[in-house]
Formats: sequence, C-alpha cells, structure tokens
Amino acid sequence: MVPHLITALNVPINELEQRILDSMPAIERWFRLEWMEHTPPFYSSVDVRNAGFKLAPVATNLFPGGWNNLTPEMLPLAVQAAMAAIEKICPEARNLLVVPENHPRNSFYLSSLLQLKRIFHQAGLNVRFGSLNPEIKEPTTLSLPTGETITIEPLIRSDRRLGLKDFDPCTILLNNDLSTGIPGMLEDLEEQYLLPPRHASWSVRRKSRHFKAYEEVSKRFGKLLGIDPWLINPMYAQCDEVNFADGSGMECLTSNVEAMLAKVKRKYKEYGINEKPFVIVKADNGSHGMGIMTVRDVRDLPELIEKTRARMAASDDLNNVTDVIIQEGVLTNERVNEAVAEPVVYMMDRYVVGGFYRVNAERGVDENLNAPGSSFVPLAFADNGRLPQAGEKPGSSSPNRFYMYGVIGRLAMLAASYELEATDPDAEVYD
Amino acid sequence: MVPHLITALNVPINELEQRILDSMPAIERWFRLEWMEHTPPFYSSVDVRNAGFKLAPVATNLFPGGWNNLTPEMLPLAVQAAMAAIEKICPEARNLLVVPENHPRNSFYLSSLLQLKRIFHQAGLNVRFGSLNPEIKEPTTLSLPTGETITIEPLIRSDRRLGLKDFDPCTILLNNDLSTGIPGMLEDLEEQYLLPPRHASWSVRRKSRHFKAYEEVSKRFGKLLGIDPWLINPMYAQCDEVNFADGSGMECLTSNVEAMLAKVKRKYKEYGINEKPFVIVKADNGSHGMGIMTVRDVRDLPELIEKTRARMAASDDLNNVTDVIIQEGVLTNERVNEAVAEPVVYMMDRYVVGGFYRVNAERGVDENLNAPGSSFVPLAFADNGRLPQAGEKPGSSSPNRFYMYGVIGRLAMLAASYELEATDPDAEVYD
Repeated sequence: MVPHLITALNVPINELEQRILDSMPAIERWFRLEWMEHTPPFYSSVDVRNAGFKLAPVATNLFPGGWNNLTPEMLPLAVQAAMAAIEKICPEARNLLVVPENHPRNSFYLSSLLQLKRIFHQAGLNVRFGSLNPEIKEPTTLSLPTGETITIEPLIRSDRRLGLKDFDPCTILLNNDLSTGIPGMLEDLEEQYLLPPRHASWSVRRKSRHFKAYEEVSKRFGKLLGIDPWLINPMYAQCDEVNFADGSGMECLTSNVEAMLAKVKRKYKEYGINEKPFVIVKADNGSHGMGIMTVRDVRDLPELIEKTRARMAASDDLNNVTDVIIQEGVLTNERVNEAVAEPVVYMMDRYVVGGFYRVNAERGVDENLNAPGSSFVPLAFADNGRLPQAGEKPGSSSPNRFYMYGVIGRLAMLAASYELEATDPDAEVYD
Repeated sequence: MVPHLITALNVPINELEQRILDSMPAIERWFRLEWMEHTPPFYSSVDVRNAGFKLAPVATNLFPGGWNNLTPEMLPLAVQAAMAAIEKICPEARNLLVVPENHPRNSFYLSSLLQLKRIFHQAGLNVRFGSLNPEIKEPTTLSLPTGETITIEPLIRSDRRLGLKDFDPCTILLNNDLSTGIPGMLEDLEEQYLLPPRHASWSVRRKSRHFKAYEEVSKRFGKLLGIDPWLINPMYAQCDEVNFADGSGMECLTSNVEAMLAKVKRKYKEYGINEKPFVIVKADNGSHGMGIMTVRDVRDLPELIEKTRARMAASDDLNNVTDVIIQEGVLTNERVNEAVAEPVVYMMDRYVVGGFYRVNAERGVDENLNAPGSSFVPLAFADNGRLPQAGEKPGSSSPNRFYMYGVIGRLAMLAASYELEATDPDAEVYD
C-alpha cells in the first residue's frame, strides 16, 4: 500500500491503470509471496516515468537521499516501516549509525539526513552520523538555513566493530553509494549489520544487471496481469569498455543505439503510438563521469559523443573506460505547473512510504530530469479519497495513479532484491 | 509510532508527557522487545482518559467498531499494519471472512465494516461478510445513507472449515464480541485462523483480569520511565456474584467502593491534587446488563443500586448475577467545542493506526462517555509538525500529546496480549 498524493496530471484513461486497480488483491498477494522468498532492500527510491501508454522505472537508488522532500503526512508511514525493518534485523538495537556521503555540504542533503534521523528516532533508535571522510577528525557540527544543526563524527574502527566515540551500533546504515570503492573500514564487520550490503555499492552494481532482473520481474508480473511486459519494462542493451578518449567501443554504441531505436519504433507501431522513439545512454555503474545522453537519431550520435568527450576532458575524467547501458527512453507525460515532472517513489523495507515529483522546467519530456535546474514538489495529500477507489474511472483519480506508481516502484525494488541476491559474495551455494 | 492528530486540548505542562517524549527511543525499544515475546491482538481500540495529572486506559476493545471514524489520512497506516498482520498469519491468503455483529442495523456500524473491507482489500485480500445470525439465510444487501451497499451472507460450515458460498477463507476475522456465548459453528476450526481467538470473547474475558495484566505492564513500564505506575494505572477491586434482584453481594460492593474512594483520596493528597475522587462500577464481563455507575460518595450508593435494579427489572435483565469491577475513576480534561471528550486509540497488529475523540456534551468529566448522545470527532492531521518534536514544551504540541496516547494505548494492548496468553485454553504448558 502506498500513501496517496495529489498529482498534477489528468491524462486520458489508461488501460494499464485499470488493470492494476482491478487486480489489487492479486498484486498485493503476489508481493507478499515474493517477500517470503526474497529480502527487500533496507530502503530505496525509484524514478518512474509515465508516458501515458507506458510506465516504467528508469533508476533504482539503494542509498536514497531526498528524504527531506517527503511531507510530514508521510512520515508516520516511514516510521512504521522503519520499525518493521529494524525489528527483523536487530530487534534489541538501541543505536543506529548512519554513514552519510563524504562531502555533505549541500543543505538539502543535510535536511535529508535529519529527516532519516527523525524517522529512526521515532522508531526507537538513537541515531548518530559517522563519516568515512578522513578529513573529519573530530565531531563537526554543520548548520542548516532552517537553524537546525547536524553533527558528523569521525568513525572509529576497532578490530571487529565500527562505531563512534561512546557509540556502539548494532546496525550501520549506509547513505553513501561508495561509488569510488569500498573502504577497508567497512570490511570484516561480521558482528554488526551493514546495510545496504557492500555489494549494493555503485562500485559493484551494474544498471544492466538491475534491468535484467527487472525484465524477469516484469515478465512474471505481466503474466499475472495478462499484459505485455513491455508496457512496464524499458528495453536495454549494453556495451563493455567504451572509451571516450581513444574512441574505442563507439561502433558497439552506434550499432546498439540504432538497433534500440528500431526496436522501440516497432513497438510504437504495434501499439499505434505516434511518438518519436529515443534512447538514453549512460554509464553502467552509477551516474558519474560520462553523464546521461538522450539520443533521438543515430546520426546525432557523433556530435553527442564529441560533447561528452569534451566535458569529460574538462573535468579530468577522460581516462575512465566505462561500460555503457543503452536504455529505451520513456517519455514523461507528467507536468507540474507546466514543467516536465517525473514521480519518485520512496520505500522502506517492503513498504511504499511516500513520494514526490522531480520537476525540471529546463528539460524536455525525453530528457533526464535529475540535472541542474531540478526541484522537488513535496506533494500534499489529496483532500479526499486518499485510498484508491474501485469505482473511479482510471486516470481520473490521483490516489489510483499513485497506487500504480507504488506498484512499479515495488517491482523495481523487487528487481534490486533479485540483483543483490545474484551478486552476494557470501551467498550460500547448495550443490 | 502513531499518527499525529490535532487535539482540542492545551492543558498546562505535564511532567509525564515530558518523561515519555524524552524516553521515546527507550520506549520503542521496550515495545519491540515485548513483541518478541508476546503476540499483539490482531486489532484493538483503547479508551484513554487524560486527567492532566494522570493518564490511563479505561477500556480495551478487542473487536473494535468505529473504523469509519478514522480519517482518510490514517488509512494508509492501517493498510500497512494490516499487511504486516496478514503476512505473519497467513501470507498465502486470498480471502478474508469478516464476521460482523449479529444485528448490524446501525449505519455507522455498517460504515465501519466497509472501512475494514477497504483496509483489507488494499492489503491484498478479497473481503466478504458472513453472519452468525440464523435469520440471515441468503445474501442480504443493506444500503447506507451514503449510497454505498454492503452484503452480509449466511455462513456455511463444513466438517472442518467455515466459509461462504464459493468463498473459502484462510482467516476468519471476528468483529463480534460473542458476549452471549461462543456458537458451535466457531468450534473445531483447526484448519483456519480464527481471530481474535474465541477466548477474547466477552463471554470469557473479565475486565478484572485485563486490569490485573495492565497493572503488571504499568509497573514494568513505570520502572523503565522512573515514574509511579499509578500515574498511568487505574486502581481496581472486584466483587463476585453481585445480585441486584435479591441484594446479595451489596456489602462487598459498598465496602470496596468505600475503600477505593479512600485509596484514591490518599493518592490525590500525596500529589496535591484538588479534585473529588470517584469510582466507576461496572460488570466484569462486557458492558451489558447493569450499565456503568459513577459513584462520588459511598452514601449515594444505595440510590444508585436502586436505580440500576429498576432499570434491569424494566429490561428483564434482573436475574443476571454478575461479577462487578470497582475501578478508580479517571477524570478527563479533554474538551472538543466545550463538550467532554476522551481519546480512543486504534491499533492493528502492534501499530497505532489512528484515533479520534469520543465526545459527549451531555456528560460530565467523571462520567462514562460511551452512552447515548456521544459523537465522534474524526480528527484531522495537524497542518504541520505531525511527528513529535523533541524541542517543544510538553503540553504545547498535539503530536507530542498524541504520541503519549499511542503509548498508553499500546500498553493496554500489551496487557490484552498478556491476558489472552493467560486464558488461552490451548496454551502449551511446560512442566
């Protein structure tokens, strides 16, 4: 179940929404059974794009920031979910150590940390922050524009445990995606719970692996609903070892972009969709380095590659050889005050606890919105009918729409769970 | 954690509230550990009275109605809690059978049933209603003033299972307190989950047993907080076999009322409380028959007994010999639009999912409000600060106050859990 939000959208009736609403008990039971077999990530956020004819996740974050964008109405749900999560992991816990990003200078990010602290405090934990940044040598108190303060402390590693001065946590919660590698400080912590696990780091994760797992999830879910999985699944391809400095790997990129555009075109034709296909090209590991390209025509690719090369050279990032994912672009039909918007769904344990719109007035319907100029609309609860209403026409009700987003968010979370199982270095193998 | 409500109250600073807020992580951890050892009731509602100097539960309902009084904002919390509850009991469940009261003619009660249906539907269950009333011989559709309808069907009992026509549930949820006895139809259902269990029925439960368990809970919780448990515990005494027809048992009643008034007076003196003590006399099993008496002076007792006798004779109820509980009266300082009010806290599984005020303009601060003339104020969420704020002065913040009510509600729920364990006829005894 999901909290139900006002959305700015009122698009035409959507068959998928109707199908999802009609199948609600079956869907919830399906998730219930999945969570008997699989462990949900501790927390996650999923960027969803709604093209009207198609609805799909485009990014799944296992170290979500942005908690400050959840409204106060959503917090009791987050607290309840946090209680359920903690109870499973470490019911006797008194202390939770949160490891933030190494350079949390942005006050929005600091607000997000304070929101996490609030949630876990209410769930019954003493929360403190410990930084991996070696420059943090003593407790450092930072001020927010709101007048609030937050203290980041140096981590103290003993032989077997990680903690802070006079603070020995049962669970260590990473809010740092460790994209530059896993510090030795986080190794060999068998006595404590480190969540998400090390292999959820962007130094290990691959988007292609996530979307492979998601493809599997969407096929099974599509069968449950009797729908073409493409309606919820963005197609993808990958190229290994693309090097923007010496140009190697560019043939792979070009041929895959061309093939993907053709595949999308065929699908659009099959469904009578009168839109221009596009693909998104991005690094397979994390969002750093090469950035995100929108390609509408394979003939634009050389210019886009040159721009990326120039940008990477300017930021001394050029020597990175990178694996690349070529993903079907999903339009977003959502608008907030005429600016292009995409919903972001927040989850803790198996529960949807809230969401908001990422809005970017400077970007188009086929571009990445998670870029300079983006803002967040902390959606208020609707004035009535917050739970999905069986009787309402699809498309006419924002709670119904948000229920659908919560389902897609949870499918992506389930894919992340499959993905983490597949990459778990400590997984027990039964021969 | 609890949802946080606007309250109409702004009483002076309350030391207990401060103590409870300061101890939040310890309290939540304490509950977490309790729920490792004990099973929460499937659902419950608790009437709480706040005297300003003292805060205590006065009634714990294990078959709560009134779900219609929860606001739409609270429902996502209820759904999330329902998911957690169902997952533990019967994760593969598709169907939930709800057994309502035998004569659900009141449209408020029907709205409450529809609300329960909505909650469990969202949690992933097909919900239907089956009546124990032998007059329901075929599916009967009742209309509500809102235009909604609800269908009550006859129960069908097979050798081993209870269901409806073409409806075989995994779990049977009782919303009927079975105060007149447990029908044979509900016996020997080993293959299905019957919740709450049969011994939660008012034909088995005794208030004195509940408040004995609550006394134990309040002592342990008082130790955790370093407070006198009396601040959260209503004292009680009991008399067996009071007979209003022949007057037997009246000496027991008189001496216990007198002793209880004296005990309360001593406590008031100890705390410098300038209020008049009173006691509540009620049947030890359920709320039927003799009604509820407020006794402010033992000299008033003969007149009150005579009134009760006359009322029972008029309703042909006089032959009931009944056990009686004599409970310390707890004033309520709450007001909604100048009418006397008491908070009612709703819980599902271990979670507080909402609450409202029971308001009765025709009653005094020392009287039972659950009586003709009562109404319900479905409290809206406050406009801001919905989570308890550590920095705020106690008494100044409604979220803080409601957090405190949620703690007391959960203490009473925990007492009900102890109580049901002690009275479980199928409990395994380890010698």
